[in-house]
Amino acid sequence: SKEEGKTVSEQGAHPNLILTAQGVKDIRAQLGSIPIFDASLKAVQEEVDAEIALGIDTPIPHDYSGGYTHVRHKSNMLMLQKAGVLYQILDDEKYAKYVKDMLIQYEAMYKTLPLHPKTRSYARGKLFWQCLNDANWLVYVSQAYDCVYNYLSEEERNKLEANLFKPFADHISVDSPQFYQRVHNHSTWGNAAVGMIGLVMNDEELIDRALYGIKDLKLDTEEKDDDGGFLNKDGKAGFLANIEEPFSPDGYYNEGPYYQRYAMYPFLIFAEGLHNVKPELKIFEYKEGVLLKSINALLNLSDADGDFFPLNDGQKGMSYYNDALVTATDISYYFGKQDPGLLSIAEKQNKVLLDDSGLAVALGIKKGLAKPFEKKSINLSDGPEGTQGGVGILRNEDIELVFKYAAQGSSHGHYDKLSYSLYENGEEVIQDYGLARFVNIEQKGGGNYLKENKTWAKQTIAHNTVTQNETSHFEGKYEIGSQHHSVLHYFSSDNDNVQVASAKEVNAYPGTEMLRTMAIIKDADFDKPYVLDIMKVVSNKANQYDFPYYFLGQVLNTNFEYKVPETLRALGSKNGYQHLYLEGTAKSEKENTKFSWLNKGKFYSLTTVSNANDDILFTRIGANDPEFNLRREAALMLRRKNTENTLFVSAIEAHGSYSPVSESAVNSNSAITALKIVLDTEDFTAIAITNVNGTTKLFITANTDADKEVRHNLKINGKEYEWSGPYCFK
Amino acid sequence: SKEEGKTVSEQGAHPNLILTAQGVKDIRAQLGSIPIFDASLKAVQEEVDAEIALGIDTPIPHDYSGGYTHVRHKSNMLMLQKAGVLYQILDDEKYAKYVKDMLIQYEAMYKTLPLHPKTRSYARGKLFWQCLNDANWLVYVSQAYDCVYNYLSEEERNKLEANLFKPFADHISVDSPQFYQRVHNHSTWGNAAVGMIGLVMNDEELIDRALYGIKDLKLDTEEKDDDGGFLNKDGKAGFLANIEEPFSPDGYYNEGPYYQRYAMYPFLIFAEGLHNVKPELKIFEYKEGVLLKSINALLNLSDADGDFFPLNDGQKGMSYYNDALVTATDISYYFGKQDPGLLSIAEKQNKVLLDDSGLAVALGIKKGLAKPFEKKSINLSDGPEGTQGGVGILRNEDIELVFKYAAQGSSHGHYDKLSYSLYENGEEVIQDYGLARFVNIEQKGGGNYLKENKTWAKQTIAHNTVTQNETSHFEGKYEIGSQHHSVLHYFSSDNDNVQVASAKEVNAYPGTEMLRTMAIIKDADFDKPYVLDIMKVVSNKANQYDFPYYFLGQVLNTNFEYKVPETLRALGSKNGYQHLYLEGTAKSEKENTKFSWLNKGKFYSLTTVSNANDDILFTRIGANDPEFNLRREAALMLRRKNTENTLFVSAIEAHGSYSPVSESAVNSNSAITALKIVLDTEDFTAIAITNVNGTTKLFITANTDADKEVRHNLKINGKEYEWSGPYCFK
Ligand SMILES: [Ca+2]
Ligand SMILES: [Ca+2]
Ligand SMILES: [Ca+2]
Ligand SMILES: [Mg+2]
Ligand SMILES: [Mg+2]
Ligand SMILES: [Mg+2]
Ligand SMILES: [Mg+2]
Repeated sequence: SKEEGKTVSEQGAHPNLILTAQGVKDIRAQLGSIPIFDASLKAVQEEVDAEIALGIDTPIPHDYSGGYTHVRHKSNMLMLQKAGVLYQILDDEKYAKYVKDMLIQYEAMYKTLPLHPKTRSYARGKLFWQCLNDANWLVYVSQAYDCVYNYLSEEERNKLEANLFKPFADHISVDSPQFYQRVHNHSTWGNAAVGMIGLVMNDEELIDRALYGIKDLKLDTEEKDDDGGFLNKDGKAGFLANIEEPFSPDGYYNEGPYYQRYAMYPFLIFAEGLHNVKPELKIFEYKEGVLLKSINALLNLSDADGDFFPLNDGQKGMSYYNDALVTATDISYYFGKQDPGLLSIAEKQNKVLLDDSGLAVALGIKKGLAKPFEKKSINLSDGPEGTQGGVGILRNEDIELVFKYAAQGSSHGHYDKLSYSLYENGEEVIQDYGLARFVNIEQKGGGNYLKENKTWAKQTIAHNTVTQNETSHFEGKYEIGSQHHSVLHYFSSDNDNVQVASAKEVNAYPGTEMLRTMAIIKDADFDKPYVLDIMKVVSNKANQYDFPYYFLGQVLNTNFEYKVPETLRALGSKNGYQHLYLEGTAKSEKENTKFSWLNKGKFYSLTTVSNANDDILFTRIGANDPEFNLRREAALMLRRKNTENTLFVSAIEAHGSYSPVSESAVNSNSAITALKIVLDTEDFTAIAITNVNGTTKLFITANTDADKEVRHNLKINGKEYEWSGPYCFK
Repeated sequence: SKEEGKTVSEQGAHPNLILTAQGVKDIRAQLGSIPIFDASLKAVQEEVDAEIALGIDTPIPHDYSGGYTHVRHKSNMLMLQKAGVLYQILDDEKYAKYVKDMLIQYEAMYKTLPLHPKTRSYARGKLFWQCLNDANWLVYVSQAYDCVYNYLSEEERNKLEANLFKPFADHISVDSPQFYQRVHNHSTWGNAAVGMIGLVMNDEELIDRALYGIKDLKLDTEEKDDDGGFLNKDGKAGFLANIEEPFSPDGYYNEGPYYQRYAMYPFLIFAEGLHNVKPELKIFEYKEGVLLKSINALLNLSDADGDFFPLNDGQKGMSYYNDALVTATDISYYFGKQDPGLLSIAEKQNKVLLDDSGLAVALGIKKGLAKPFEKKSINLSDGPEGTQGGVGILRNEDIELVFKYAAQGSSHGHYDKLSYSLYENGEEVIQDYGLARFVNIEQKGGGNYLKENKTWAKQTIAHNTVTQNETSHFEGKYEIGSQHHSVLHYFSSDNDNVQVASAKEVNAYPGTEMLRTMAIIKDADFDKPYVLDIMKVVSNKANQYDFPYYFLGQVLNTNFEYKVPETLRALGSKNGYQHLYLEGTAKSEKENTKFSWLNKGKFYSLTTVSNANDDILFTRIGANDPEFNLRREAALMLRRKNTENTLFVSAIEAHGSYSPVSESAVNSNSAITALKIVLDTEDFTAIAITNVNGTTKLFITANTDADKEVRHNLKINGKEYEWSGPYCFK
């Protein structure tokens, strides 16, 4: 349907990259009757008009991110793109003139511009301190150029192409192969930049360079970039390789949602351009349509209110309200299957692209086609073939659990095998710390990664998983971590009441195997769905295991006595422990250790099976933090010393609520009276959960044979259990 | 207008207390065409229907707040009141029967009920652990009784009155004079309870007891209650005395907004009852109409999104969304001057009272009369005569500053003379800690005040004011503090761009005088209005002064080098210092000490005039907190040792913004390049503020003669300044 009535732009007709001549016609015909499009257009027009009134400034590059020249050139690239679009849609020459005038200024500066004076990057740009930002610029400005292509004289075009666009494309590619010639989100921007200007200039050489990388160039495979990632481990390069490698067949992006969001824009905008100019490439069908699948994966990697889960180096608060996701949503709708759920996200974004895809979304919304975008439990495999672990998201009512058993996640990965984070209705309950960085805030390390990102945020102890002997997974070494991934044991979401993800990690600590099975269980005896967490550790030697719960909120009560120290000291000296203050200590006293807390008006309780000698620690982040870079947040931590094989079994309940307005506390107590390991063999682990009402339920997980069809028989305390598949709950 | 067409209820006709016979008629006539009323009614009906379906339970009293029997009886009182109203409005007997059946159960239990088994209160109730809650119960249940009065047989009424209502009223009054016979918010509930049941029963003796206290009873004036307040210092008692004493002529309630909110309901609901049954009392005109004035004061004591400023023992998050404020808003609208601003608050509350006043509000909204409730700078005097200091609120655009120079605030007062808190658009920037209590959360000290309320929250060092020699104002003694109050020097809000409050405190530290002048200045050279703070200290001996800024958010940068300690220790051993960890130390290095931070997407900068030897401390709350009762929040603190007279001069700027979605940091730097004391004499202090643009402005405040009319002449650095009134800004 969407293919009918569309004319493939003729070779050389402009605009043809993102806006198309036909699209412009359609848009002009609908203007004034498509509210969300009209509003988006008005906002852009107001923004650009204000900017035009202020005048053009193209300062000599000087600053890092956050500094004036950086911010200015970044703003210019956006204004150019927007002004180009306004020229096309509104047919008002003032916008074309603005684009032309600014481009001419850039041309005059660029032709003699040296490398950017700041030296911190492994690949310095010219307008910006790093090639990455130069590439961003060209991705946007290519679109502007396409929009004013026919407004410019041939002479003007020749000048711009010869002195600005071509050398610009060369600088970020052939002159910066360490940036361009790899599989990495930076390179994707580079590829898209070169390809998009190539499409506008109709320069097949640039387009080929974009799609397949710099011809005949091989880089040293051992060299590393600023973040410690390998520059080019296997020699692959170019846009297609960049689609091939980082996306799993399910559309999961190996660096996680924060970087996927960042990478999405060049993937999709260049793909849109390729679709329009080179439809024969069938770019949206490439690798079984992975680009569109990746949008669905990305949307599913957000919490109930659209914030992306901060896996790896993810900054909290980034969400599907980001402009890149407006692009993703609209493109997915238009070039995909017109999923009405996407329209509801577009409604929330309250913004559409000012192009053919945005028009389609605006019309869909206008016709009342929008339906809620329903997020369900979903398992997303990792790795180019989908065989390198993955991320499992369990969802039931307002509870969401994100279980990470993926590969390393490139240079932005954390040492967080089998870790998880827990959300209720879009609020963090058990948090993943995220990154240690204030992106674009110059006062904090120039807006770049802070050293605490390595010393704290990436370390295993910063995550809700097992740390063995106070060392991080893979010794915290990227060289080792990047060779391994966890393995899915099973994922089961067929039963609406019991959603389970189970995965195994055998490489993080050689000689130790960890099998973690996490479930969200909806049981009529409970207020809300609760989490059951079974971490089975098998080791060939005695170790110390630390098992933290990074709860957010305020301590309510415990069923154990604890002491708080007079002075706060760091819990250790390295591997992240140097950043934890020890705020309280206890010994487990009962078969179950219980702890409850209050966060944002909701109550939570942890019930965990205690070993008689478990240490219980209250910790708080912030030690050895000489510039206050870390948030002072707490954890409860179980410490089990001198242990070979062991089992950590916990239930986490969300229950009730508190309102400071009505001052009423509803259902503020845990509903679990006992959590018990009733069986633990190589093949099976069985946990009994007893509710205050007196009912006991059994959860049995198969540790070895997780086949969906296989029938299991088991006798526990004289009672027979028989079931099919990897787990049993009754 | 509102008086016309209303029939004063005949003596003995029911309902006549809150609902009136005429009101019921009017409501029934409008039902279905008054959206907010209809919705409120529907919500109440659903709630009560669900409750009726669950059945009646009147358990034998046993628990503290938060426990089952407490929660149940509290819920019952609300259900009775609501069911009574539903019976009247919907004319459906099932509601009357529900009220009758429950009252009969209460009657059967109450007639032999002993004191509540929990012994913690100074005045134990019978249904609840404290008389206060029993009084709450009777205030609500009186309304229910009025609604079903005519549904009950005379025999039933006699039984209820003889075995339940009369002894109930007696228990909370004549049998509990330490609770009833005083000026205190507890007593107000007691008075209202006795009065309201008296109005329904038409019992003049009870009504008199409510209005004037227990006849001929004098209490020991030295005895104290649970909170350390005097039981009855001057022998005053009864509802009228309770209006007289705690409200200033401006309507400020001496315990602050949190307790005013709590106290409002009995004041207003009993007043409404008195107005209906005893119009000759003209209760709403009492003390120049202070009850209605107090509602306006209370609404002004909330931030931009309606949260009350947490002065004294105020729990954060309490707001005008509380049901007591629905009552206050509707009553103020109906019995006051039909202020259309109140309608906009009612719209936000999305709820009205199901009575004549709620009907009036619903009709006003329906007619489109609502206008925004505009909060402006306002000065609220404290004390029965308005002569005991006060609270000044400065507002300009999104910036709000609350400056407290009031009297002690009864037993819920803090040692916080001349302290302030700062808000931007309803978010705290420089916070007042509030109380140390989790109201109604049983796990935290039974929901009662925690010991950290005394050891931390009330102490001077917990506030944004001067602490001298590490001791609290008045040695932290209520007996001393309650004899004193600060004194207004001047309050000026005539100039839209410069709002100033200035007050003096001479008793907090004998021998030391503190004059604090706080201004919010809107200057074209600044992004947003900024705060100028001049604290002038004059002492007859050398002291140590601590001057904290309880900023919320994350440290961005400083213009001084600081060290962080390896281990965290408490800053002191008493007066609140035992709860502060020392997290960083520095010496002031420049004439201005600068510090900036980020909170909830906004940037803030402090610029303060440094003395060469000032210590700069980073502190964090949480030391010696064995049950994690305190929030781990930070302060920057200036410490000036061995000093007699001194001046603390600071500017606090809100500027720019940060979005984690767009990752753009706008205007993240302070716009002040220099802050300078250019003159400081007994009579005048002059501060020069220099902006990055190079412009310098002078703020001169008169320290002795603050007369509005007086002309001042002053030569500073050879330049003549001439102006009228207490300050000059140019
Ligand atoms: Ca969220
Ligand atoms: Ca607020
Ligand atoms: Ca306070
Ligand atoms: Mg992480
Ligand atoms: Mg969220
Ligand atoms: Mg206070
Ligand atoms: Mg607020």
